[in-house]
Amino acid sequence: MNTAQESRVRESFARQAYMGLLGAELVHVAEGEVDIAWGFNPSLVQQDGFLHAGVVAGATDSACGYAALTLCEEGAEVLTVEFKINLLAPAAGESFVARGRVIRRGKTLTVCRGDAFAVGAASEKHVAAMTATIISVGG
Amino acid sequence: MNTAQESRVRESFARQAYMGLLGAELVHVAEGEVDIAWGFNPSLVQQDGFLHAGVVAGATDSACGYAALTLCEEGAEVLTVEFKINLLAPAAGESFVARGRVIRRGKTLTVCRGDAFAVGAASEKHVAAMTATIISVGG
Amino acid sequence: MNTAQESRVRESFARQAYMGLLGAELVHVAEGEVDIAWGFNPSLVQQDGFLHAGVVAGATDSACGYAALTLCEEGAEVLTVEFKINLLAPAAGESFVARGRVIRRGKTLTVCRGDAFAVGAASEKHVAAMTATIISVGG
Amino acid sequence: MNTAQESRVRESFARQAYMGLLGAELVHVAEGEVDIAWGFNPSLVQQDGFLHAGVVAGATDSACGYAALTLCEEGAEVLTVEFKINLLAPAAGESFVARGRVIRRGKTLTVCRGDAFAVGAASEKHVAAMTATIISVGG
Repeated sequence: MNTAQESRVRESFARQAYMGLLGAELVHVAEGEVDIAWGFNPSLVQQDGFLHAGVVAGATDSACGYAALTLCEEGAEVLTVEFKINLLAPAAGESFVARGRVIRRGKTLTVCRGDAFAVGAASEKHVAAMTATIISVGG
Repeated sequence: MNTAQESRVRESFARQAYMGLLGAELVHVAEGEVDIAWGFNPSLVQQDGFLHAGVVAGATDSACGYAALTLCEEGAEVLTVEFKINLLAPAAGESFVARGRVIRRGKTLTVCRGDAFAVGAASEKHVAAMTATIISVGG
Repeated sequence: MNTAQESRVRESFARQAYMGLLGAELVHVAEGEVDIAWGFNPSLVQQDGFLHAGVVAGATDSACGYAALTLCEEGAEVLTVEFKINLLAPAAGESFVARGRVIRRGKTLTVCRGDAFAVGAASEKHVAAMTATIISVGG
Repeated sequence: MNTAQESRVRESFARQAYMGLLGAELVHVAEGEVDIAWGFNPSLVQQDGFLHAGVVAGATDSACGYAALTLCEEGAEVLTVEFKINLLAPAAGESFVARGRVIRRGKTLTVCRGDAFAVGAASEKHVAAMTATIISVGG
């Protein structure tokens, strides 16, 4: 992946105010692969004190969308058509990472799998599994 | 629906700090039906200035979960097993509403459809369609 | 809907050998709406004697795809990008109907909701709920 | 996995008349893993001569359900709660395999990923990606 492609991802990510609200950062950008990490924040929880599904889903969706964007033509943008997420375990922990990976690259539609993990000192817990369909527009 | 059931929904919703972060309110609670409304906020956007999918999905997921909770036995709590959401149009507007409706009530699992709308002066625009599977625990 | 559009749906359906294998028929074709009906057949069951999810999903997917096709430009064809289906109750009965309805019409992508019912003498039982994303190609 | 567990999977599979109709066979059964293979058959196609989504989804759903069953207690049965499938490429080929793998094992609910491939002489083509939620009953 060239520098221009990575810059495109980083610039778009920087415009996602919602990612800023989560305190999220791009921690890995490669061809067809993007990881987003963020820390626990008590303002993001559901009724039991775990991260709300909207937070986990939002970060994993962004990871999938940007994974798709790494493979798009210059000038193209990406939008999420749809996603499905299974919440495998409570999103409890101090920090989290969402990993988006392209599993099918198309001219118009790209399909990604995304996985979110609660990151501990010695291990990761798989908290969510997503499949997302991303459309490329423009470009 | 009796007062105790409605109170249970309202108390749980009040504990969802993430709903508070969105400025979201419960605007309709009935048997198998919950609506959640919230306003536009520039801290919740994706790269094009529309609400991030994580915000729309999060509010619609809460609407579905609480719609399920209205039908659960006393003492039970609900957790989202999984959901799928199609983003039908950009989430652009000044205010939004997510409507969760139970379509299949079971002892363990409840299935809901959720729809999110951007609300204008004279009309609503359908911005997202969800199906969610909710599990009842305890009770 | 004009006759040419309906013919296009009926001709494509007639080429789906799998629908023939189910003994399925198009019983309703209108703008954005297609219903497919079929009868119980012991060769289509899962381990408990109910229709296999692949049968219910297949017929409901075809209903969604053809509902989308009713709205496509002349010369276009449709393909299913993805679908999600909740199996709400065992598919037990003598006859079944799957109803596909367009909920978002786009130039490239159309989103449909599909519902399958076991049809009794006096009532219908809701056995499955689908959301499908359909792509239009050619045209 | 012991012999009794494998027998339970094989006996249930043998009762799925729909798998017989596809000419499908269990080709791999291990803890949390089941593969089902079947050949092309012109009676299973959609309008373009490729396997219908209901066939690919049905076999992949069975692979996921039986992968879950390998991990269930004695006496338990499995039912599919819901699945989502992305159709990544036309299901064209002479033979096919669907692989179900458990990604989250729970007492009540098990989550599986399933992938279907068209199998060629020297390679496999990924034609579909599924996520399925399976419920264990009885046992």
